[in-house]
Amino acid sequence: MPHKPIIAFAIGDPAAISPELAVRVLAKHDEESATLLVLGDARVLDRGLLHANLEDAGLAGTIARVRPEDIGTARPTRSVFVDLANCELDDVEIGVASVTGGRATLDNFRVALTAANEGFADAVYFTPFNKHAMRLGEGNYVDEIGFVNRTIGAERSGSEFNVLDEVWNARVTSHIPLAKVAESLNTDRIFRALQLTTEVMEGAGIQRPRIGVAALNPHAGDGRNFGTEDEDIIFPAVERAKAHQLAVEGPIPSDTVFVRAVKGEFDAVLTMFHDQGQIAMKLIGFDRGVTLIAGYPFPIATPAHGTAYDIAGKGIANDGAALKAIELATRLARPASEAPEITKTFADAVQGTRAAAANASISEGAPVH
Amino acid sequence: MPHKPIIAFAIGDPAAISPELAVRVLAKHDEESATLLVLGDARVLDRGLLHANLEDAGLAGTIARVRPEDIGTARPTRSVFVDLANCELDDVEIGVASVTGGRATLDNFRVALTAANEGFADAVYFTPFNKHAMRLGEGNYVDEIGFVNRTIGAERSGSEFNVLDEVWNARVTSHIPLAKVAESLNTDRIFRALQLTTEVMEGAGIQRPRIGVAALNPHAGDGRNFGTEDEDIIFPAVERAKAHQLAVEGPIPSDTVFVRAVKGEFDAVLTMFHDQGQIAMKLIGFDRGVTLIAGYPFPIATPAHGTAYDIAGKGIANDGAALKAIELATRLARPASEAPEITKTFADAVQGTRAAAANASISEGAPVH
Repeated sequence: MPHKPIIAFAIGDPAAISPELAVRVLAKHDEESATLLVLGDARVLDRGLLHANLEDAGLAGTIARVRPEDIGTARPTRSVFVDLANCELDDVEIGVASVTGGRATLDNFRVALTAANEGFADAVYFTPFNKHAMRLGEGNYVDEIGFVNRTIGAERSGSEFNVLDEVWNARVTSHIPLAKVAESLNTDRIFRALQLTTEVMEGAGIQRPRIGVAALNPHAGDGRNFGTEDEDIIFPAVERAKAHQLAVEGPIPSDTVFVRAVKGEFDAVLTMFHDQGQIAMKLIGFDRGVTLIAGYPFPIATPAHGTAYDIAGKGIANDGAALKAIELATRLARPASEAPEITKTFADAVQGTRAAAANASISEGAPVH
Repeated sequence: MPHKPIIAFAIGDPAAISPELAVRVLAKHDEESATLLVLGDARVLDRGLLHANLEDAGLAGTIARVRPEDIGTARPTRSVFVDLANCELDDVEIGVASVTGGRATLDNFRVALTAANEGFADAVYFTPFNKHAMRLGEGNYVDEIGFVNRTIGAERSGSEFNVLDEVWNARVTSHIPLAKVAESLNTDRIFRALQLTTEVMEGAGIQRPRIGVAALNPHAGDGRNFGTEDEDIIFPAVERAKAHQLAVEGPIPSDTVFVRAVKGEFDAVLTMFHDQGQIAMKLIGFDRGVTLIAGYPFPIATPAHGTAYDIAGKGIANDGAALKAIELATRLARPASEAPEITKTFADAVQGTRAAAANASISEGAPVH
């Protein structure tokens, strides 16, 4: 019997729906599927319990609450809540981005990443962030991927995948100006993205996923009339991927490839830039989906919807995407046998990552990718 | 009582569904709404009659067939078919792009544009083209807008609008490489596009249309983190438009603006580049919609779907979008009172535009925009 994976579970923005969403996910959690290492402030958990307003809060009500020191050097064998005591709730107004909220959210996420990186967990899950609050919390915050790279000292950036029902979307470039997209593409990078997409999807149980590759230019360049990158850069990457037995097709005009994916012709679409995929995914209903960051030794998953400040605290947040995210994190979790050996106590790991963050200079804020 | 508009009606690719689509539109035509000046080869019309396989072909069966010489210098007072005798059908295989088909299609379109430009008609309508066939027909063909500019000697390019149910989409740039999009934007150009969109939509009966303006960069640049054009170029255009009492909002992240338009928050979306709008419109179902080229003294409309070579000749082509296109052309037609005075016979106009096209050099192929 395979070992149950351990999911490091970071509670997101305390001013948003994150606390009640965390409680709902815990309430529905099946302890047989995964062990949760929940990271946050106990006061935020209590606020979530209040707002979620559940008759039966399940694990959210019964979970053992411990301090970081209590973990020692052992991987948890049953779900546990680690009180990081990092969020003075009086400073956090519901529905409003704040320094306190941003700092607490980043601290939870940082500790979750560190837990996975140091061998205490096999995957990371988090409830929604708010970018503005994150920047209030730390001036050099740019995006999640940059933050992960810095926190775990990654040599190579991970990639973001959007997963909605049967359609996955991966992208070659992400949070960069549109003017920089064309010059940021090269055949190697696209080929590696196709390899990574295939690996990640096979890890999720989709064998030899069929990937439609979006073209960069209108009408895929229309025979070099509207740009040459589709023929000169994307096409060779697709050919190389085919030579490696990947099930890819393209470049396909980007206004057609999603229509075909929705019809079931592709399992995934690889887009060249952020909005190329996001326009389509949001129209299809991606708010019901999951965002996955892969390409690191462990997966990182979160619901695709935002912080929903407007409905925070009302107990009406839908937990469908959050549950799907934790399910995907469980499915893709690093096998426990491949987890690094634990070399320090959990408390020392927490202290270490906090100290490193405090010493990081603003100039390190830029993402690697 | 306003004068009935005259629509110059160019039959599109003879190898495609265009002949049968033309016949279906004619069969359902209401002579009270508009007078049609149908331009094509009588053999193509006959093929359409055969393939459309209608019990009652209506106007398609009864329309008077004349030669260009028969028109003289008079605007037609009832619908008429002008046999341009330009398509040797033996050279046109159904479902296959050909030199003969491409040349005939361009000739029909050229004569239709000339008819409107010389005062014989008030709007132009055409059934679908095939770009490959057009290039076989004329080596310097790039796109419809470039062709129109050249044919009528336009000083300024028109703009393409996509119209689907209640959502219009206009774009600032179109058939150019993605790498050139950012540098092609400026505040004047965006402001003019907002003005033109408002004018055209008001002409179609939508008073003070609410226009959502798509941002260029991911998350609208996310506070200058991912590009500066949204703040420096698009925002001032929106402000200027507001100062001119236009109902505009933006820049709005492009992955959100269409979701909001579909919900009814906007009547139109102005996108910065081709695929930004096309990805969304095609997912929404734009093949049911209409493409409109506006910004010239007369409107040009066509169904948004393609030539559908795969179902050509089978009598199963859906005429919904074609009927909507002719309805829009009718609605937006230049008032007869503003039509230029006719200064030459129709036959001379046809001969003149053909001679000009034959003398045009390859270097004139580039579109003005």
